[in-house]
Amino acid sequence: MLYFLSDYTEGAHPQVLRHLMDVNMVSLPGYGDDPHTEAAKAKIRAACGRDDLQIWFLTGGTQTNQIAIDSMLRSYEGVIAADTGHINIHEAGAIEYSGHRVLPIPHVEGKLLAADLDRYMTEFLNDEVREHLVQPGMVYISHPTEFGTLYSKAELTALSETCRRYGLPLYMDGARLGYGLMSPATDVTLADIVALCDLFYIGGTKVGALCGEALVFTRGNMPPHFLTTVKQHGALLAKTRLVSQQFDALFTDDLYFKISRHAIDLAMELKAACLAKGYELLMDSPTNQQFVILSKEQMERLRQNVQFNLWQWLPDGRVAVRFATSWATREEDVQALIALL
Amino acid sequence: MLYFLSDYTEGAHPQVLRHLMDVNMVSLPGYGDDPHTEAAKAKIRAACGRDDLQIWFLTGGTQTNQIAIDSMLRSYEGVIAADTGHINIHEAGAIEYSGHRVLPIPHVEGKLLAADLDRYMTEFLNDEVREHLVQPGMVYISHPTEFGTLYSKAELTALSETCRRYGLPLYMDGARLGYGLMSPATDVTLADIVALCDLFYIGGTKVGALCGEALVFTRGNMPPHFLTTVKQHGALLAKTRLVSQQFDALFTDDLYFKISRHAIDLAMELKAACLAKGYELLMDSPTNQQFVILSKEQMERLRQNVQFNLWQWLPDGRVAVRFATSWATREEDVQALIALL
Amino acid sequence: MLYFLSDYTEGAHPQVLRHLMDVNMVSLPGYGDDPHTEAAKAKIRAACGRDDLQIWFLTGGTQTNQIAIDSMLRSYEGVIAADTGHINIHEAGAIEYSGHRVLPIPHVEGKLLAADLDRYMTEFLNDEVREHLVQPGMVYISHPTEFGTLYSKAELTALSETCRRYGLPLYMDGARLGYGLMSPATDVTLADIVALCDLFYIGGTKVGALCGEALVFTRGNMPPHFLTTVKQHGALLAKTRLVSQQFDALFTDDLYFKISRHAIDLAMELKAACLAKGYELLMDSPTNQQFVILSKEQMERLRQNVQFNLWQWLPDGRVAVRFATSWATREEDVQALIALL
Amino acid sequence: MLYFLSDYTEGAHPQVLRHLMDVNMVSLPGYGDDPHTEAAKAKIRAACGRDDLQIWFLTGGTQTNQIAIDSMLRSYEGVIAADTGHINIHEAGAIEYSGHRVLPIPHVEGKLLAADLDRYMTEFLNDEVREHLVQPGMVYISHPTEFGTLYSKAELTALSETCRRYGLPLYMDGARLGYGLMSPATDVTLADIVALCDLFYIGGTKVGALCGEALVFTRGNMPPHFLTTVKQHGALLAKTRLVSQQFDALFTDDLYFKISRHAIDLAMELKAACLAKGYELLMDSPTNQQFVILSKEQMERLRQNVQFNLWQWLPDGRVAVRFATSWATREEDVQALIALL
Repeated sequence: MLYFLSDYTEGAHPQVLRHLMDVNMVSLPGYGDDPHTEAAKAKIRAACGRDDLQIWFLTGGTQTNQIAIDSMLRSYEGVIAADTGHINIHEAGAIEYSGHRVLPIPHVEGKLLAADLDRYMTEFLNDEVREHLVQPGMVYISHPTEFGTLYSKAELTALSETCRRYGLPLYMDGARLGYGLMSPATDVTLADIVALCDLFYIGGTKVGALCGEALVFTRGNMPPHFLTTVKQHGALLAKTRLVSQQFDALFTDDLYFKISRHAIDLAMELKAACLAKGYELLMDSPTNQQFVILSKEQMERLRQNVQFNLWQWLPDGRVAVRFATSWATREEDVQALIALL
Repeated sequence: MLYFLSDYTEGAHPQVLRHLMDVNMVSLPGYGDDPHTEAAKAKIRAACGRDDLQIWFLTGGTQTNQIAIDSMLRSYEGVIAADTGHINIHEAGAIEYSGHRVLPIPHVEGKLLAADLDRYMTEFLNDEVREHLVQPGMVYISHPTEFGTLYSKAELTALSETCRRYGLPLYMDGARLGYGLMSPATDVTLADIVALCDLFYIGGTKVGALCGEALVFTRGNMPPHFLTTVKQHGALLAKTRLVSQQFDALFTDDLYFKISRHAIDLAMELKAACLAKGYELLMDSPTNQQFVILSKEQMERLRQNVQFNLWQWLPDGRVAVRFATSWATREEDVQALIALL
Repeated sequence: MLYFLSDYTEGAHPQVLRHLMDVNMVSLPGYGDDPHTEAAKAKIRAACGRDDLQIWFLTGGTQTNQIAIDSMLRSYEGVIAADTGHINIHEAGAIEYSGHRVLPIPHVEGKLLAADLDRYMTEFLNDEVREHLVQPGMVYISHPTEFGTLYSKAELTALSETCRRYGLPLYMDGARLGYGLMSPATDVTLADIVALCDLFYIGGTKVGALCGEALVFTRGNMPPHFLTTVKQHGALLAKTRLVSQQFDALFTDDLYFKISRHAIDLAMELKAACLAKGYELLMDSPTNQQFVILSKEQMERLRQNVQFNLWQWLPDGRVAVRFATSWATREEDVQALIALL
Repeated sequence: MLYFLSDYTEGAHPQVLRHLMDVNMVSLPGYGDDPHTEAAKAKIRAACGRDDLQIWFLTGGTQTNQIAIDSMLRSYEGVIAADTGHINIHEAGAIEYSGHRVLPIPHVEGKLLAADLDRYMTEFLNDEVREHLVQPGMVYISHPTEFGTLYSKAELTALSETCRRYGLPLYMDGARLGYGLMSPATDVTLADIVALCDLFYIGGTKVGALCGEALVFTRGNMPPHFLTTVKQHGALLAKTRLVSQQFDALFTDDLYFKISRHAIDLAMELKAACLAKGYELLMDSPTNQQFVILSKEQMERLRQNVQFNLWQWLPDGRVAVRFATSWATREEDVQALIALL
């Protein structure tokens, strides 16, 4: 069986696991107050080119989104997101659980565009009864989006400027950030993200870690008593070392970027092969998720040897499927998949 | 430096880490739907002697308490606990964050006694305006308690019977359960806990795992859509394998119990040495946490070579300190500590 | 100045206020445990033709919606509503504050149609990752809707049947219920609502009361400890008599229905006059809210003598305005308004 | 039957109800944006001697406590209160429902003393793991307390200074404020409360109104978007006039103070008579609630003709009962009660 189901089906990159083994029996204080956590933060700051970033390690994406959003919002505020945003669909109401509404705006290829945000805010501010509405308090985007698409630097800059005009912090969900940064199609760097976002997270779970996300505050804007907030949400690991040591390994010798690049190279190889064989794509994804349109028969035949994600039935009876590559995907498996297509 | 600060200062037991390495590159579906998770559950069920237990793997103690309690209570209900209970003090308001009050009852050596629960419930039910009060909806205990003490089988049986009389599910926080079960002073077995509690968790973070707790429902009483609830709380790991594979290792060849016994043996050795040297104990703990009374000078001298926890200043100017042993404590370190005392 | 701004701009119907005066100095126990509250419930039960209804008096619409929905849902559930539903827009996130998501479905003239609900639920149940989504737990509708429109008996029956097929309680927001029941265009009776809905509320604030809504449970399905829930939400009046005595007056000698009919008669008179004068309507409302399309100039001229609600600018530069009649509207004011149009 | 059960058993003072009648048919915009609401605020500001106070009208005490506390606290903060405080007992968990813990400190006759607060905060700030605790965010007191007792000006000043030293806003629950201000035993004036508290509420429900409390912010510290917060809590009346017009009447010609004085005079008459007849008091209350100790037989005999509150059984088999006078109590009823004692 070939595995292209998702980018979180294996454990951790071997170098990550090896680092955990190397420091396993070192005695360290709990809750993040240890030199390994400091080392990981220092390496992330170096990769970002900014030594003043505030960083916190958490275990998963939904948890990070919930805490980032809940800690930044006042209780009467909601978070604006593209209607396809992960927080608006696949997080089981984690934002509402923390008392806040997700304020959806129609997406364009999974993206929230500056012009649409501007229109939304203009209408909101012109609404005479806006005090009866949830107050918009921040903006959520994902990069890559849930469709594997990417903001251009121009799009991200425009969005950032619009957010600042309206006093809305801009938060980027980077569950697959490595795959976005290493795409040949992107002109957005990690430094750009630091400059344009108020907070964002660097995803580890889908990029080589057993678990873990690094939440980064770029303006000295980490809310006070953040440890208390994290604990209150049930998200404080006694052994924060588990996450920080993994990020220490991922940000040593550019491992995070190298393994992301690996996944992208294989995804591009797969895309090129699909196009060469005459397959249509649901959309032109520049990242590690490729959306290919198959006939029902093709899909069912392929299923016998390959695990993939059935994404969406099309009106004409065909079906879009998702193949995800990752840091763990092997070159020979991509070749085998191409041969089967 | 000698480390007796807590039982979560090292990584994982080597066999646990080795198992993670062995299965690292196996492709598995996410969110717990994999054979390793099933294997871990099967081994826990076998250790409990019951094949019908419902089990869920979570990452930490506060998270497990929050989800267990929030998912069992109706919104107008609160949870009864000893006033020294972890949820009433050191969890940063995680229970209140989920909308529920902790209803404290004065403790006896960290324990909640059946007679005190009975008195509380009698008063509650006799209160003419009890509909204006938070309704008691379940009972929380920890075993071992925050003071290292243990319920006797008689105490636990009486508490369980009182809970059933009032229709209150009994929940046991087993963050250090292994250390409780392996104490020479206990007459409570894992099978007793299964029989007497409605739900409990087997702690991994403090007993050999990098992270992880196994929440066990003993009456077919896992709330419906529990995955959704876990996701909503931000607690669903994409790679649930991280926790379940660790429990798989811990419950292979009785590893969980052997390493717990190791910690207990060293703790008893330390206790005996302290008593032999004429030290007083703050209380007679039968588990891996030992509370020893020192003079201020003794404490400060010891601090230069040993890390331990300053527990409580006494009215007479002396101080109670806590030495915690764990699965990771070395026999030679205990000897070195004894020599320094 | 003529007032057609809304249906809550005056105090209470004089008979309601007179009843408050008559019983003002009677000593009564608080919190609803009094004969006046029982009398009001009995009269509402009689009007509904069912002596087994459970009834609770609350002060306002948003409060009633929040408590009704929060008390019926499990914590992992959300409430389905038309995207134009009051809870989805003008309640400042009161549902999310209680931890639940509003699950919007596109409306048809403010209504949620059975076929659309069926499609939504079919897609939900076919979604392989539906456990990662908010679970649909009940259905909210308003009748009349926010646009003044009404469900036909056939529509309401179909919706009710669809709800039952999927195990979803159906809840009707009856903020303006009297105006809906007295419309000449309706074939839905109060008995129909009792038969087809699992819970609903009879609005008082907009129909003759100073404040107050009567929440009705039709299946013996009032959640246990409902007083505690109401108190927990800060919604329990010490003097519940304030609301129940008003409902006692409103349901004596059909006052509620008579004053609703009065508002409807005047609204129909206004509508007929508008149509006769050649005005277009934004939609054909059969209730006390009339939506008339004016030119910008007409609107501005009218504003000098009439208070009304600017509803919506049209793409062609014209504007839809809302005229609301109520129990308090005077025949001569409607004539004066017609003369000004 | 004589009624001394509580101070909320009748409707409204006749002058309050008359004012509601007088302005009943005036058309006013909803949600507090009307001249009557402004007039009521102006009169309260005049009574307080400060023209810069921010004032909001709400319907009940628990609602006001919940909104005042929730809107002032950050999500990781809790509210300190005497353990006998209303929010800690009889509000069904309304504070926890909003996500915050009540942090109880042992009371002295229902009061929270500055020295006890100082000790609590000193211990908190010296706790090395205080980031794992709920952060104290404000202080709640009631005046009169739940036992009818009053803070002296010295006590209130000391408490206020302690609060400011620790950066804790001081909030006073004034459900029975009028009865406290008119006690012959008090040296605390309304101006003192304005000067010493950061926010407080003037209770109407128990002092002559059908419903209603006036929440006062004394430092320009009303949180932004307060209307949105009130709406989100389900507490925004469409007809805010209902409450503001009542306060307009209560603060015209000192009505609030006159009717409070009436209740106090009768309570003092009752107390003097009890003492003269040799009854013991549970505590020496200077306000409208009198706590008298009876034998079981006396209590049962009295019950046949008088409604009162059974407060507490004493260890010796006697019982403390509460007689509450109010604005509505008649002189002849007090005489009749005295005759029966």
